[in-house]
Amino acid sequence: MADSKPLLSLDGDPAAAEALLQDVFGIVVDEVIRKGTSASEKVCEWKEPEELKQLLDLELRSEGESQEQILERCRAVIRYSVKTCHPRFFNQLFSGLDPHALAGRIVTESLNTSQYTYEIAPVFVLMEEEVLKKLRALVGWSSGDGVFCPGGSISNMYAMNLARYQRYPDCKQRGLRALPPLALFTSKECHYSIKKGAAFLGLGTDSVRIVQADERGKMIPEDLEQQIRLAEAEGAVPFLVSATSGTTVLGAFDPLEAIADVCQRHGLWLHVDAAWGGSVLLSQTHRHLLDGIQRADSVAWNPHKLLSVGLQCSALLLRDTSQDKFYDVTLDTGDKVVQCGRRVDCLKLWLMWKAQGGQGLERRVDQAFALARYLAEELKKREGFELVMEPEFVNVCFWFVPPSLRGKKGSPDYNERLAKVAPILKESMVKKGSMMIGYQPHGTRGNFFRMVVANPALTRVDMDFLLNELEQLGQDL
Amino acid sequence: MADSKPLLSLDGDPAAAEALLQDVFGIVVDEVIRKGTSASEKVCEWKEPEELKQLLDLELRSEGESQEQILERCRAVIRYSVKTCHPRFFNQLFSGLDPHALAGRIVTESLNTSQYTYEIAPVFVLMEEEVLKKLRALVGWSSGDGVFCPGGSISNMYAMNLARYQRYPDCKQRGLRALPPLALFTSKECHYSIKKGAAFLGLGTDSVRIVQADERGKMIPEDLEQQIRLAEAEGAVPFLVSATSGTTVLGAFDPLEAIADVCQRHGLWLHVDAAWGGSVLLSQTHRHLLDGIQRADSVAWNPHKLLSVGLQCSALLLRDTSQDKFYDVTLDTGDKVVQCGRRVDCLKLWLMWKAQGGQGLERRVDQAFALARYLAEELKKREGFELVMEPEFVNVCFWFVPPSLRGKKGSPDYNERLAKVAPILKESMVKKGSMMIGYQPHGTRGNFFRMVVANPALTRVDMDFLLNELEQLGQDL
Repeated sequence: MADSKPLLSLDGDPAAAEALLQDVFGIVVDEVIRKGTSASEKVCEWKEPEELKQLLDLELRSEGESQEQILERCRAVIRYSVKTCHPRFFNQLFSGLDPHALAGRIVTESLNTSQYTYEIAPVFVLMEEEVLKKLRALVGWSSGDGVFCPGGSISNMYAMNLARYQRYPDCKQRGLRALPPLALFTSKECHYSIKKGAAFLGLGTDSVRIVQADERGKMIPEDLEQQIRLAEAEGAVPFLVSATSGTTVLGAFDPLEAIADVCQRHGLWLHVDAAWGGSVLLSQTHRHLLDGIQRADSVAWNPHKLLSVGLQCSALLLRDTSQDKFYDVTLDTGDKVVQCGRRVDCLKLWLMWKAQGGQGLERRVDQAFALARYLAEELKKREGFELVMEPEFVNVCFWFVPPSLRGKKGSPDYNERLAKVAPILKESMVKKGSMMIGYQPHGTRGNFFRMVVANPALTRVDMDFLLNELEQLGQDL
Repeated sequence: MADSKPLLSLDGDPAAAEALLQDVFGIVVDEVIRKGTSASEKVCEWKEPEELKQLLDLELRSEGESQEQILERCRAVIRYSVKTCHPRFFNQLFSGLDPHALAGRIVTESLNTSQYTYEIAPVFVLMEEEVLKKLRALVGWSSGDGVFCPGGSISNMYAMNLARYQRYPDCKQRGLRALPPLALFTSKECHYSIKKGAAFLGLGTDSVRIVQADERGKMIPEDLEQQIRLAEAEGAVPFLVSATSGTTVLGAFDPLEAIADVCQRHGLWLHVDAAWGGSVLLSQTHRHLLDGIQRADSVAWNPHKLLSVGLQCSALLLRDTSQDKFYDVTLDTGDKVVQCGRRVDCLKLWLMWKAQGGQGLERRVDQAFALARYLAEELKKREGFELVMEPEFVNVCFWFVPPSLRGKKGSPDYNERLAKVAPILKESMVKKGSMMIGYQPHGTRGNFFRMVVANPALTRVDMDFLLNELEQLGQDL
C-alpha cells in the first residue's frame, strides 16, 4: 500500500537526504562562498533572457529527475545568478556575505517555523524581542515595541497604518470613508513605497504631499511647515510626516530635530524611514546624522542593507507602548501583524551580533564611511570623474566623463551626451562580468553612477579597481 | 589603517568562513536533519519563557564571541526550538522536511538577491514566471499573471486591492473617500486575514459581510446571494467575494461553481483563498474539491503548507492579463508589488518539483488524504475518540473523551468538562515532548483536536502512535 510507507523516508533512511544536502552544501561552498566572493571571478555571467531560458530548462514536468541532475541544476542556478557577495558588486543597497549571518539563515531554514506563537517558536519569539529591544536602544528608547517585516516598504505601510489608527481608531472598523480627508508629508527624495503605501492603504496617492528638498536631498523643514498649512487650508487633516534617513540615490539624511519640532507643533506622527541609514546608529562617529530620531514615533530600519544580514531583515520600531494597542499584547506576536505566518528574521542578525559584538558592527559602519570618503578623494584626483556632490554617507554619486567630452562642459549637447555614458559603461561591465554599479538620472541631472559601499569585505583595492575599470571601459568614448 | 584591509577577509582567506559554515552545517545535519526527524527524539524541549531566556543568554553585547561559543549558540537555538520536521509535529498547516526544498532554500540564502529586476536576479525572474505559469495551469488558466508574496494574508490583501482597483481605478490616486461604500463577502469560516486586510486597506472591517456556512463549514451560496442584496439595499457597492478552499480548522471547501454563478450574476470579483487547499489541484483524484476554481479572478495558494516547501512560498495567481494593469509589464517585477526588495521564493519549489516531478507531488497529496482517512477509520474503532465530522481533507477534527466522561454525553456539564480535556493533554504532550497537535473551540463546539496530515514522511505508524499516545496521556482523566 502506498500509504504504508513514507514517500520520503528521512526517518528510516536519513542517509539519502543527508547525502543530497551535503553535496548541495559543497556546491554552495565552492561556487558561492569561494568563487562568488573572489575578485578574480566574474560578478555575473550575462545572458539574454531567451538564451538563459534555454540554458536553464525551467519547465516543470511530470517525471522527477535523478540526484545528479538536481545537483547540476543547482550548479546552473548559481552559475547564471549575479554574485551579490562579490567584492565588485556595487549595484544595490545590500551586498557582501557575512558568514555568521549566513549560518543563522541556514539554521533558520532548517528549523522552518513561523514567528507567531511561543508554542511553536519559543526561541525566536524571545530572540526577536531582545533584538528589537537592542535596535530601539540604539534609537534612544528604553521601552517601546516593534516587529520584523518583509521589507522596508511594508514597514513604512505599518507606520502609516498605526499613525492613522492612533488618530482615528474608528478607521479599523468603519474605514476611511468615515474619516475626514487625510494628508501625509514626505520629501521628494523619499522612497517610492510611501506613495505605493498610500494607494494600498486606501488613502490615495493624492494624500501624499511632497515637501521640497535642498540640493543635497534633505527635506526643508520650512517647506514642510508650509505644506502642512496648505493642506489644512484645503480642508485636509495632516496626520503623519515620513522623514528619510539615508535616501536611496543621494544617501541624504533629513534634519530630524527640525522636522520633529514641526511635528510637535502640529501634533503629527513622525515616522523615520531609516531603512538604509538606520545602521549608522551603531557608529559613535557618524550617528549624529540621525540626531533627533529618538523623537520619532516609529522607525523603519533594514539591517539587511548596510549590515549585510541577508534579505530580508527589516525592523519596524515603535516608541510608545502606552497608547491603546490595536492588537493584544502577549508573547504570541501573531496578532500584531497583518501577516499570519511570518518568517523568522531575527536569528541571522542575532548570531552575527553575538559573533561581531556591537564593536565589530560599529567598525564595519565606520569602515564603509571611510572607504566612501577614500573613493571620493581618489575620484577628485583623476581626470574624467566628477562628483555629483561630496558624499555624506556611503553613496558616492559621480559622472564618468569620457575623453571625448572632457573640457566641453557647457557646450549645447554636453549633458545629453554625458547622460548616455553610464548606460553604455554599464552594458560593457555587465557583459564583461567585471563589476556592477547602478546609475540613474535624478531631478535635472542626467544619468550618473551611484556607487554603494556596503560589502564589509571591501578594501581600497576595490575602490581603485572601480576607477581603473571605468577608465578602461570608457577610454574610447 | 583600518580601512586598508577588509574586516571579513573572505576573499583573501575564505578558509575561516568556510570552516564556520562547515561546522554549522554539520550541526544542522546532526541536530535537525537526523535527530529532528527521528521519532525516537523529542519534538520539543519545553521551557518556561523566563527559564529559556536564561538558558539562551540572548543579550547583545559590545564584545564579540569566539567561534566555539557561536557554534554552541547554534546548538542551543536548535535544542530549544520546536522540530517542525518531526514525524509527531501535527500542530500547524505545515510540517515535514523536504530535502530538495531545503537544498533550494540553502542555495537561495547563499545567493542572497532580490526578486525585482532581471539585472540582479536573471535566473529567478525567469524561474518565478515559469513556476507561476505551472501553478496557473493547474488552476486551469493558459494565461494570466501572479507573484510570490510574503504569506497568504498578504496575497489575500493583494486580491482585495486588485479587485478594488479594477472596479475603481481612481482609488489609487484619490483614495477610498472618492468611492461609494464598498462591500466584500466571505464566509464565517474564512481566514482572519480577510478582516485584517479590510482594515489595513482602509475599507474597514464593517465592509466585510459574513456569509453563513453549512455544518461542514462550506459557504452557503444562497446566503451569499442574500447578503449581496442586503448590502445593495443598504447602499453599499459589492465588489468582491472571497471563497475558501481548505478552511483552517475544518478543512472545508466552499462550492466554487455555485459561488462563481453568483459572482457572474452580480459582476463581482471572485477571489479564492486556497492557501491551504490549493495543493489538492495536483491530485487527479481529489481536485474535484476545487471544481470551479478556473472561474476565479484571483487565487491565493501556499505551497509551503501541504507541499512542505518551507516558509514562505505563497503565490497569488491572476486569471486575466487583458485588463489595464496597475503596474508596468516588463521582466522587472519590482513594479507589480507593494514590496520593493522581495525574497526569492521560487527556487525551493522549482527544485523540489524538478526532483519529484508532478507525479511525485501528486502521490504526496494522495498519501496525505489516504492517511487522514486511515486515521478517521482507526479513530472510530476505538473507545474514547469522537470525530467532529468525517474528514473531507487532511484536517481530522476529533475529541478525546477520557474514561471519566465516557457514556456521559448529554449530562449537564459534559461539554464543559470535555472542553477542558484538550488543553490538559496538550500540556502533557508538550512537556513530555512526545507530539504536538493543535486544538481550538469552534462555533458552539468546545475545544477539540485538529490533526493535520501534511508531513510527507508520515506513515500509518504515526497515526497509530497519535491514538495510542492520547489514550496513554488521558488514561487518568
